Amino acid sequence: MPPDALPAQAEIVIAGGGVIGLATALELLKRDRDVLIVERSRPGAGASAVAAGLLAPTAEADLAEPRLIDFALDSLRRYPAFVAEIERISGRRCELRDQGSLWPAFTAGDEAKLDEMAAQHQRRGIASRRLTAEELRAREPHLAAEARSGLHVTDDLRLDPRRLLRSLTGAVRERGGKIRSGYTVREVVLKGGAVQALRTADDAGRDHTVRCEVAVLAAGAWATASLRSPLTAAVVRPVKGQIVRPVKGQIVRLRGAVLIQHTLRTPGIYLVPRDDGELIIGGTIEERGFDQAPTAGAVAGLLDRAGAVVPAIGDLTISELSVGLRPALPDYLPAIGPAGADGFYAAVGHFRSGILLAPATAHYLAEAIAGGAVPSALDSLSPDRLGGESAPAPLPGTIAEAAR
Amino acid sequence: MPPDALPAQAEIVIAGGGVIGLATALELLKRDRDVLIVERSRPGAGASAVAAGLLAPTAEADLAEPRLIDFALDSLRRYPAFVAEIERISGRRCELRDQGSLWPAFTAGDEAKLDEMAAQHQRRGIASRRLTAEELRAREPHLAAEARSGLHVTDDLRLDPRRLLRSLTGAVRERGGKIRSGYTVREVVLKGGAVQALRTADDAGRDHTVRCEVAVLAAGAWATASLRSPLTAAVVRPVKGQIVRPVKGQIVRLRGAVLIQHTLRTPGIYLVPRDDGELIIGGTIEERGFDQAPTAGAVAGLLDRAGAVVPAIGDLTISELSVGLRPALPDYLPAIGPAGADGFYAAVGHFRSGILLAPATAHYLAEAIAGGAVPSALDSLSPDRLGGESAPAPLPGTIAEAAR
Repeated sequence: MPPDALPAQAEIVIAGGGVIGLATALELLKRDRDVLIVERSRPGAGASAVAAGLLAPTAEADLAEPRLIDFALDSLRRYPAFVAEIERISGRRCELRDQGSLWPAFTAGDEAKLDEMAAQHQRRGIASRRLTAEELRAREPHLAAEARSGLHVTDDLRLDPRRLLRSLTGAVRERGGKIRSGYTVREVVLKGGAVQALRTADDAGRDHTVRCEVAVLAAGAWATASLRSPLTAAVVRPVKGQIVRPVKGQIVRLRGAVLIQHTLRTPGIYLVPRDDGELIIGGTIEERGFDQAPTAGAVAGLLDRAGAVVPAIGDLTISELSVGLRPALPDYLPAIGPAGADGFYAAVGHFRSGILLAPATAHYLAEAIAGGAVPSALDSLSPDRLGGESAPAPLPGTIAEAAR
Repeated sequence: MPPDALPAQAEIVIAGGGVIGLATALELLKRDRDVLIVERSRPGAGASAVAAGLLAPTAEADLAEPRLIDFALDSLRRYPAFVAEIERISGRRCELRDQGSLWPAFTAGDEAKLDEMAAQHQRRGIASRRLTAEELRAREPHLAAEARSGLHVTDDLRLDPRRLLRSLTGAVRERGGKIRSGYTVREVVLKGGAVQALRTADDAGRDHTVRCEVAVLAAGAWATASLRSPLTAAVVRPVKGQIVRPVKGQIVRLRGAVLIQHTLRTPGIYLVPRDDGELIIGGTIEERGFDQAPTAGAVAGLLDRAGAVVPAIGDLTISELSVGLRPALPDYLPAIGPAGADGFYAAVGHFRSGILLAPATAHYLAEAIAGGAVPSALDSLSPDRLGGESAPAPLPGTIAEAAR
């Protein structure tokens, strides 16, 4: 068998080689399961490797998601051990750093917002501290002189998602997981209401089917788009024709002198530093389907806003313009857990928090698959909440057939 | 002999395969001369192919160069025939367009400047016309609503420099010119005050010498930087260590809907359209040596200024960020003509106007080389003006030796 061909069967097949699929695979491998990942492109080719790597459970100031905060805090707490294990198995570092995030305030309105955030943090038990202008400047001397005060969210972490993806890929392989690239999921084949196989198509459009007991859908923005027919399982019942949709996020990568040590955040953008002098600027949210082109307006907006925070970025080199397609469900929460057929699980819709939520997603999903019972941490994230029906309709021979 | 090896001799060797070297080669080939071009990288790899292709003899409003205007107007008038001939010989189009340039005014100060430019044009015999806001908008509906009036410089042309370079390269080859890539000029070898050979180095640093009767230095920003020792000929006598220096110009290329038909100009930037929907934005001038990295500040500045002129560019895709190193002499005029030794000629220092000045440069330089007498059109552009001495010192065996 050529190295890249699909095996005829695997106990568990995971569709998607992004951070969610890989992390889940590793957790299942640790539980001695036989795992195959099928990936449309190559591991980390989707939104995961475009992400800035800001691990901050307190969502954007204007996009607060209180329903996710406990799960996000849980995942953040898991990060140091999660990364240490991956680094140990793979021998590759992920550049996990713990300086936390700084929110500078430039106006009285900004300061009122930071006061409010600090109060929210206190209620939630999130460590943060208001900083004077002097304290702020002592931490980040290149910050714009107009910064009046700041907020230091001390528990926020950052890491390099590209390193994480390489490290995770290495760890999965090291633990015996199989990864096959170039196969797009087309159909989950059921028999008697249980998963029997996963049908995929290769780049030439040829069908390849893998028999399996468990199928996990973790294909990000492509999770439902690539399916030949809408599944009837709750998670993939189509809402407006496509339940998981891509939300475009543009990222500018700069290189040059190391200007900042902490992640810097404003309501509009974030600046995430890397040890090697890379600086990642992101923050756009656009509905453009699967369009992955960097645009003049978004890039100018990111550079202008970042330049207002750290003026010296003007002299840095633009090393990359990239676009991530963040997978969003209609309620912007991820769907993690059993998804309407025996052996069929979802881990989709992580939107802007895929990297942050990977450790908790992988842990609890692996518990659900390997332990049989669904952990209560997943209650509010159940795929059952989608589709408008509490119990999915009975499933015929194959999901695709049901839709014809 | 392998196809890329240098011949042992050629009647005329031109150092530099940019627009100046190629256009000069073609003029000499038309005069039945034997011509070899040696090019550091590949034809059109330098500033020529980064240029926007705006052919406008009226220099930037804030960089007016009255000493060059007659030569520039002469070159512009030559353009249609120049391009027609190249297209005919090569069979490749250059996308020469004659809609002219539009200068929109957004403030009363802008309007006063356009009045002044219109008056200058009238004195110089350049065709231009003030436009009302309505006339401006009729020509360019996507122009920002704030435009109060405009100036249409009707004789300005535009073309696609990348097409021009391919077409010129094809025409030179078609007419029997030899082009060899991967050879950097290191030394002009003289004997008895006359050119005897050109010494080059290949990518591996090995020396290759071509015997020749005439050597033409047309290597743009690299014209003197690559020479092993400063020449004593007037044109390359070092001023602050390096007489021809690179001046960085950053260009943003956008793609998408065709938004404008004319070249749009402001004192800060220009927007040059292409028929296929490409839009080229340029206008930066920086002293950064040979640095070719696009920077955050310059790109943001270009996008912001262009967005103020044509707001709809925000949705266009950024297809390329590029940097051109424009060759500048201390007085920002080109040096064209005999350069201090029998058979040694220069065509360097075209700064921001290499594409525009190519037809006149090539025509008059070929006349000087093939006809023996230097045309009066080159009087003010003589390399003799450089170096502070009216007569170059007598030249020994090799130019390099003279400097030791």
